[in-house]
Amino acid sequence: MNIFVINSGSSSIKYQLISMPEARVICSGMVDRIGQESSRLDYHAFLPSGEVNQSREIPIPDHAAGLKAVAELLTDAQIGVIADPDQVEVVGHRVVHGGEKFASTQLITPAVKAKIRELFPLAPLHNPPNYLGIEVAEEIFSKAKQVAVFDTAFHQTMPPVAFRMAIPNELYEKEGIRSYGFHGTSHKYVSEQAVAYLGKENSKIITIHLGNGCSMAAIQDGKCVDTSMGLGPMNGLIMGTRAGDIDQSVIFHLVKELGYSLEEVNILLNKKSGMLGLTGYSDMRDIGKLVREGDPNAKLAYELYAYRIKKYIGSFAAILNGLDGIVFTAGVGENDPLTRKLVCENLDYLGIQLDKKANETRGSGIREIQSAHSKVKILIIPTNEELEIARQSFGVVGKD
Amino acid sequence: MNIFVINSGSSSIKYQLISMPEARVICSGMVDRIGQESSRLDYHAFLPSGEVNQSREIPIPDHAAGLKAVAELLTDAQIGVIADPDQVEVVGHRVVHGGEKFASTQLITPAVKAKIRELFPLAPLHNPPNYLGIEVAEEIFSKAKQVAVFDTAFHQTMPPVAFRMAIPNELYEKEGIRSYGFHGTSHKYVSEQAVAYLGKENSKIITIHLGNGCSMAAIQDGKCVDTSMGLGPMNGLIMGTRAGDIDQSVIFHLVKELGYSLEEVNILLNKKSGMLGLTGYSDMRDIGKLVREGDPNAKLAYELYAYRIKKYIGSFAAILNGLDGIVFTAGVGENDPLTRKLVCENLDYLGIQLDKKANETRGSGIREIQSAHSKVKILIIPTNEELEIARQSFGVVGKD
Repeated sequence: MNIFVINSGSSSIKYQLISMPEARVICSGMVDRIGQESSRLDYHAFLPSGEVNQSREIPIPDHAAGLKAVAELLTDAQIGVIADPDQVEVVGHRVVHGGEKFASTQLITPAVKAKIRELFPLAPLHNPPNYLGIEVAEEIFSKAKQVAVFDTAFHQTMPPVAFRMAIPNELYEKEGIRSYGFHGTSHKYVSEQAVAYLGKENSKIITIHLGNGCSMAAIQDGKCVDTSMGLGPMNGLIMGTRAGDIDQSVIFHLVKELGYSLEEVNILLNKKSGMLGLTGYSDMRDIGKLVREGDPNAKLAYELYAYRIKKYIGSFAAILNGLDGIVFTAGVGENDPLTRKLVCENLDYLGIQLDKKANETRGSGIREIQSAHSKVKILIIPTNEELEIARQSFGVVGKD
Repeated sequence: MNIFVINSGSSSIKYQLISMPEARVICSGMVDRIGQESSRLDYHAFLPSGEVNQSREIPIPDHAAGLKAVAELLTDAQIGVIADPDQVEVVGHRVVHGGEKFASTQLITPAVKAKIRELFPLAPLHNPPNYLGIEVAEEIFSKAKQVAVFDTAFHQTMPPVAFRMAIPNELYEKEGIRSYGFHGTSHKYVSEQAVAYLGKENSKIITIHLGNGCSMAAIQDGKCVDTSMGLGPMNGLIMGTRAGDIDQSVIFHLVKELGYSLEEVNILLNKKSGMLGLTGYSDMRDIGKLVREGDPNAKLAYELYAYRIKKYIGSFAAILNGLDGIVFTAGVGENDPLTRKLVCENLDYLGIQLDKKANETRGSGIREIQSAHSKVKILIIPTNEELEIARQSFGVVGKD
């Protein structure tokens, strides 16, 4: 079964065509800078004759045009992978915010679409482009079943003590203001792998997703019981350009004392903070290079980044009251030994002891990098959100 | 030596006259509702003839009038404790924000006053009334030495990794935006007592100050290395009316989606949130009563309050990489067994095990309430911020 996975952002569409259940990626790519002067269309396909990589700069005025251009590539006589858009049997959409309405993956119906629209105020930057992606895909892949996989769904098992905030009750009851958590598809994927790998169903695991966005989850017996992100995807860990947790007094101070507009503060904390604000760079590879060159700002930024993760490991170990494993995943988590080293050092009170050499050895698949004396397993597990979306879409359609 | 301790707020002045070095309280009281229609003046004195309690409702238009009224009571022929204001030799002032300028208690000079004024933007609600208290006290107790004890000073030993935020460097370097922490006088007082009590100089201690305001500090070898409050006194733990830590997305959501003004959000998070927002009450005694009556909101609020403390215990245990003792102090910390029970239960992974009976037994002074198997000592240590201010003022004047 051909499942087309779409992750539709405000000016981009990431896509993969995956054959299920064998989880074979047929092609993948991205439409970027939609609506800007020069858009870009990337396409990477595995053909019987070999791999094809194509990158074009063409004007793509909107999402509909972007997805049409992708469909044309998919069905191209030379480099296409299917004969007709109708050979896509399922389209799996990443939808960022499922609110409290969606605790699981949904076959998209008019009622589901209406609910996704109702959630626009909770995720004004994310749900509208996700929704647009659904509408465009319904046109182009009109024979396919459309499925929504929510970034928040995995975290819906959190108990009230973890998701409620200390604000007037009516703001929760009437307005839905609470912690939802994000990156749920990734936390679900790697925590399931970790539980299977550890072979221990009643396990206490902390998953640490460190990509462009960063978040952590506390997983007990396979279920999320707490996570670092809240109502939106800004708080918790320090990220490439996002500040993560910050004392709210800073916001009031910037506006009242330093003359910022609230929108400027929003942009500051989302786009100009995090590692970028501390070092001038948002990519950990650039910052790691600066650290090796002895740059003091880069060194401090790395330490702050790791310190925040350490604090969440401690708080999650406390609420789990135990710890069997911690899992590093996503770009930085999988590939940056320096981050893992700074996070894990001096945590033996929690049973965490890193093996220096294992940490620095490159590898693939699931790897253990703790020392022989470590009570807690330290795992690297590569995440694969697109595959997880395909799996869940396949699961929903299979049940249908 | 007579030391007059003043804690001057926006509409109140709390005071104590303490004889040092024997730490004997001569009198204490409060001027409240300054500038409002009906102000209130409380006075409690220990006279050779017995205790005197007086409470008057009189018009007090401003801080100068308030402190003059107190000075008249102190020197009253019938119920006074001194013959003349000049018998006050030192006035010790609580000053909330000392920024990075003040890491210790200061004899007040024109230069110190100028620096306190410079810090007004960092603590617009607190430093101006503190400053006003100094100016008024200089007039009324004109022969006395004036001393400033800063709420932030004890936390100045925090390393950059604990006090820096992931925002552009220049906001720290030019504007001083960082974590400062508060309740330093209390954390210092109880942590010093804890270190002495444990008889272990190289100790790892977490102090938990639970009063109207609530905060925690991680103390290593007697020095603060991290704390739960930041630039202002709003974040960290859940408090009577303050939300404590909250995802910044909530602020943007309230303004952009729900039409709040930023000032309304400020008031919401400071005055209408915390336990008040969750239960309708801000006093834990009222909420405890509701819990015993089976009120589900009160139960959840108590659990949230304790859960937040638990998470900070975990994060501080992680960054300390060890734990010798945790200390409960201030009104709720000293007097509420239910809070201590909810905080300590299911924390044995961190070495914390409460003795149920010891926790519920009333007592005075320093008490241990851990079980025999607990690796970590659980202490109740009554705080005394006024005494600590008097001690530090005495120390500064003695050195002078």
